[in-house]
Amino acid sequence: MPKPTLAIVGATGAVGTIMRDVISRRDDVWGEIRLVASPRSAGRKLRIRGEEVTVQALSEEVFDGVDVAQFDLPDEVSAHWAPIAAANGVIVIDKSAAFRMDPDVPLVVPEANPEAVRDRPKGIIANANCTTLALIPTLAPLHAAFGLKSMTVASYQAASGGGKDGIDALYDQLSAIAGNRDIGFRAGDVRDALGEGADAAFGSPLALNVVPKVGGWKDDGWTSEELKVRNETRKILGLPSLAVSATCVRVPVVVGHSQAVHATFDSPVTVAQAHKLLADAPGVVLVDDPAAGRYPTPIDAAGLDDTFVGRIRSSLDFPNSLDFFVVGDNLVKGAALNSAQIAELLLPEFS
Amino acid sequence: MPKPTLAIVGATGAVGTIMRDVISRRDDVWGEIRLVASPRSAGRKLRIRGEEVTVQALSEEVFDGVDVAQFDLPDEVSAHWAPIAAANGVIVIDKSAAFRMDPDVPLVVPEANPEAVRDRPKGIIANANCTTLALIPTLAPLHAAFGLKSMTVASYQAASGGGKDGIDALYDQLSAIAGNRDIGFRAGDVRDALGEGADAAFGSPLALNVVPKVGGWKDDGWTSEELKVRNETRKILGLPSLAVSATCVRVPVVVGHSQAVHATFDSPVTVAQAHKLLADAPGVVLVDDPAAGRYPTPIDAAGLDDTFVGRIRSSLDFPNSLDFFVVGDNLVKGAALNSAQIAELLLPEFS
Repeated sequence: MPKPTLAIVGATGAVGTIMRDVISRRDDVWGEIRLVASPRSAGRKLRIRGEEVTVQALSEEVFDGVDVAQFDLPDEVSAHWAPIAAANGVIVIDKSAAFRMDPDVPLVVPEANPEAVRDRPKGIIANANCTTLALIPTLAPLHAAFGLKSMTVASYQAASGGGKDGIDALYDQLSAIAGNRDIGFRAGDVRDALGEGADAAFGSPLALNVVPKVGGWKDDGWTSEELKVRNETRKILGLPSLAVSATCVRVPVVVGHSQAVHATFDSPVTVAQAHKLLADAPGVVLVDDPAAGRYPTPIDAAGLDDTFVGRIRSSLDFPNSLDFFVVGDNLVKGAALNSAQIAELLLPEFS
Repeated sequence: MPKPTLAIVGATGAVGTIMRDVISRRDDVWGEIRLVASPRSAGRKLRIRGEEVTVQALSEEVFDGVDVAQFDLPDEVSAHWAPIAAANGVIVIDKSAAFRMDPDVPLVVPEANPEAVRDRPKGIIANANCTTLALIPTLAPLHAAFGLKSMTVASYQAASGGGKDGIDALYDQLSAIAGNRDIGFRAGDVRDALGEGADAAFGSPLALNVVPKVGGWKDDGWTSEELKVRNETRKILGLPSLAVSATCVRVPVVVGHSQAVHATFDSPVTVAQAHKLLADAPGVVLVDDPAAGRYPTPIDAAGLDDTFVGRIRSSLDFPNSLDFFVVGDNLVKGAALNSAQIAELLLPEFS
């Protein structure tokens, strides 16, 4: 059989750009690759696999002959177009939040639940949120060995989670305060230096700050991001009553979501056992040598495929519990790479 | 009786500077105020209460006639000099870690355990770590009402926790990357831009990064800062077996330590109850109105006396538990103010 045809829908955005990079450097498993975006981007030429490809406008016709489509679109646009593509026989891998909690849509992280791609009654497979995706490759092997019972998470999320606008806002704000060596000591001085509009991207200025609000406000003071970490982790690991509390915080980092995790298991677990499991875990790099000053940080994880885990400690006062720190590139594994990996899981269906 | 004599020992450092500010703007309760520092700073003139005061070199004689001394010195210098001052009849309030866990030295946060200042067999009273100090004013009233049982904490700690060198390192690094709008996407690109020496202040570069290491390495992968949060919270709240897991992380903020807290209590607790208690708690400002986009951030807390708490949520899956976010100025309440408040608790002894 010929190689299957892939469509990248939302090819011009921040994640679409990373997706073209990811596809270009992975095994060349696809036949035609169609790049699709909004009508205003149609006609642009973008590079993928070393070739220039002309962007086509999103339409029903653009899916003719497509086998698999990667969607990176706003929730409401995905909600409209993914069923249309699926009705045309396309397997849709959707990176939005529109379908993640739909019981008829599998939510897949290949390191955790690759088999879930096969059961897709709507022809749609969902890709998890970037914060969840930085956690799962570490959690999955620990859960398999020791049984995950509960988890508290505090995140340190990069500006690029807010797309190109978020990245630009951080660079703009850092330029505006650069060279001022008295700033940051008085309430409001950073706001004064940045002027109007500095709240636009993240709700509060991000330069010299941390912002305990990621996503929209939901019921009872929770944010959408915090609920995604909880609900998506439960679904991916098949633990519908897993106890999770997450606090999601934006930090002045360009790329790389970090998370401080406190996880409690059904069985006793030692640091040595966790080290051994995580050293061998797919998609995970163990960086945990305090004596040598080695631990994960976002500037060392940016642009890389793996998620990095370190600072693994046996909780002093909680039985069967570990504390650790994970970092993953929110655009690579957190979006484009995971989606590409899901697509590759489908290849046997076309051989 | 005349007003008591105060000595500020370590008057020239980052905290000493804030201490002079704090004393100058509080009630004028002190008689003579002596400023003391290392011999190399002796003879400098520094302002306090609107007057210039000449700095004296640290010596045994400098404590003659002193009633209360505020020490802000490195641990080993405090360990040497605090007993000497105390032997000369001075009540020493020590901000170092040298005496905090000594059972014969009370560890005091006036909002939590003011009565503890009276029982000081060594004549020394210890001031808590800045991270602990940002937590206690919020924890104390919640503990009094509901009984604190366990807590997980993830911190977002400012560069100024590393003193003047830390502040300078952050400003230097931010200047070095300013205007570069491609940086932060590739592992190592921030390190390359900053060059040699960028690890010196914090173990890793801090610009565009977060560093999951605050303080020195202790046993089993824990840092000194993480153990301080646990051990000092236990001592201050009188809960020697309180379960605590902390992960302490440095972030590119100048002033203001933030913490994401998950706290479990003996009794049921509602958000409304916590709001009511914390709205009335001394030293605490409740900033918790998601609908109006109001939550605490470090740039809004810098330079202020109070600690700020918001994002209070009832944990969805943990009984009797709250998740919340606290921010406090690590130089003001986190060091100088708390020490000044302790000193003022001693005033009745001199009236």
